[in-house]
Amino acid sequence: MGKFIHGVDIGGTTVKMGLFNENGELIQKWEIPTIKDNGGSQILPDIAGAIKAKNELLGIQMSDVLGVGLGIPGPITSDGRVLKCANLGWGIFSVADEVRKLTGIQKVCIGNDANVAALGEQWRGGGRGFDNIVMVTLGTGVGAGIIIGGKIITGSNGAAGEIGHIPVNTNQTRTCGCGKKGCLEQYTSATGLMSDARLAIENNDRPSKMREYKQLTGKEIFDAFKAGDEVASEVVNKYADYLGRGLAITAQVIDPQAFVLGGGVAKNGEIVAQIVKENYEKYVMFALKDKVFRLAELGNDAGIYGAARMVMIDD
Amino acid sequence: MGKFIHGVDIGGTTVKMGLFNENGELIQKWEIPTIKDNGGSQILPDIAGAIKAKNELLGIQMSDVLGVGLGIPGPITSDGRVLKCANLGWGIFSVADEVRKLTGIQKVCIGNDANVAALGEQWRGGGRGFDNIVMVTLGTGVGAGIIIGGKIITGSNGAAGEIGHIPVNTNQTRTCGCGKKGCLEQYTSATGLMSDARLAIENNDRPSKMREYKQLTGKEIFDAFKAGDEVASEVVNKYADYLGRGLAITAQVIDPQAFVLGGGVAKNGEIVAQIVKENYEKYVMFALKDKVFRLAELGNDAGIYGAARMVMIDD
Repeated sequence: MGKFIHGVDIGGTTVKMGLFNENGELIQKWEIPTIKDNGGSQILPDIAGAIKAKNELLGIQMSDVLGVGLGIPGPITSDGRVLKCANLGWGIFSVADEVRKLTGIQKVCIGNDANVAALGEQWRGGGRGFDNIVMVTLGTGVGAGIIIGGKIITGSNGAAGEIGHIPVNTNQTRTCGCGKKGCLEQYTSATGLMSDARLAIENNDRPSKMREYKQLTGKEIFDAFKAGDEVASEVVNKYADYLGRGLAITAQVIDPQAFVLGGGVAKNGEIVAQIVKENYEKYVMFALKDKVFRLAELGNDAGIYGAARMVMIDD
Repeated sequence: MGKFIHGVDIGGTTVKMGLFNENGELIQKWEIPTIKDNGGSQILPDIAGAIKAKNELLGIQMSDVLGVGLGIPGPITSDGRVLKCANLGWGIFSVADEVRKLTGIQKVCIGNDANVAALGEQWRGGGRGFDNIVMVTLGTGVGAGIIIGGKIITGSNGAAGEIGHIPVNTNQTRTCGCGKKGCLEQYTSATGLMSDARLAIENNDRPSKMREYKQLTGKEIFDAFKAGDEVASEVVNKYADYLGRGLAITAQVIDPQAFVLGGGVAKNGEIVAQIVKENYEKYVMFALKDKVFRLAELGNDAGIYGAARMVMIDD
């Protein structure tokens, strides 16, 4: 009946799980709750239990499982140890060893969840067809997963792709969540976008559709922009200018083939990729102009895809 | 008598050549002139001739040569083609195929000269002991070679490590050599340093040792700085601030273990590494603070070392 791979994406609320065949096709996906009691000590046993139960249900022998990949919301060393994972209550230990012990599966691959999702998008999502991509997540914060030669670039402290904290404005006086001032994330996260939009309509009476909303979200700002609202256009153009500059900076360092945009802000559609690309080209050197900008496609499944992919490409 | 590797570094004036044993020890080094007549068509035959002559002189059989590596002053694709090399008069062709034909040696590895020098420094120079480094060359321009996992990151257009063209000042009105405005190189090249120093003593009569020199070079500026000259200190601190920021940006993208500083400006000694590190730490996020800053050690030999290393690590 062939061979199988389990892809696991551990989040703060639920663990997403996927069973893949040896060709990398997703056969089944499901979720279990993330039980964070007792320092998160139940999380890995629960995952091992879910893997075993699924195998039994489908008549899969443990010897037919090629491996299990796990994406974890924290920094990971190259040998599969977590270096503390506040979200789950975990300290420092080897997740890989623990999963081997609990499941009997020997091939266990671990990665940081953002990097693993980037690998998923490169393999089967917005980045497919490219070996070298930067997957940018535009959510509450801004981060990137960098894939070169089809593999995750982890960085020596697990901090590669922390592009949200690139310093882009030495005159900023507000402090970023990281403690520095003038980080890219302060302008290009969903939070930054909303705060800029609020500032733009406060203390003046310029007409704007954005005034009609009680809770001004990224969607409303982009809807107003698409409808030709002048103030929203200024806000979105400033947003795209900063993001374009941040990605130009990123390209000057690693020269990827494509950028894949995900997270809440990217849900506003192709226009996001388009205006970011336009602004990117203002700031990048000639040899780097011709890059592809795509939207992420796998949504919440990117993590399980990337987790399975780690097992497939592990030497 | 063991096996051998030829490491070749092609420059615009001379070709540097090195013969290494299979343990990577440099046995002999020598130079031949770079003949650029007729579209540089003589360069590779001259190199092939020099390799054969050296082998014959030392009684080395062609079958004892493991391979030849070549560093080339232009962009290189991953399959060993040059994409035009204005310095040598070359158009688009496969250097690797040509060298195979001329020498009969099958394993031929090609890289961009800056990247190859970075590999040399990582292997046997200022970066030894680290798998992940950024080697920054501070000369007429500013460029970097990025080594991750002991291998060169080329980039999809051969433009990885072009950190000299990171946009760092959106208010700059002067145009950089690349056509953009406000590139890192405008502030952190030797040229940028000298031009800032001249500006600092023009149109005012502040006392400064720097006025004593007819031709103000990087060395004189740093000597004045080391001697406590106030104007020179301002100039050097501004220089180090920009460079620290540029390397902080680079670290936010790829998180190396160490930075290795080379080129003319780095010849001013350990103080350069020290002040750049101090300024770097102002701009980088906490997780990335603890990086090593070293000076390059191999000088003009970095290229032949890196060229030989490419052959040793080629799969």
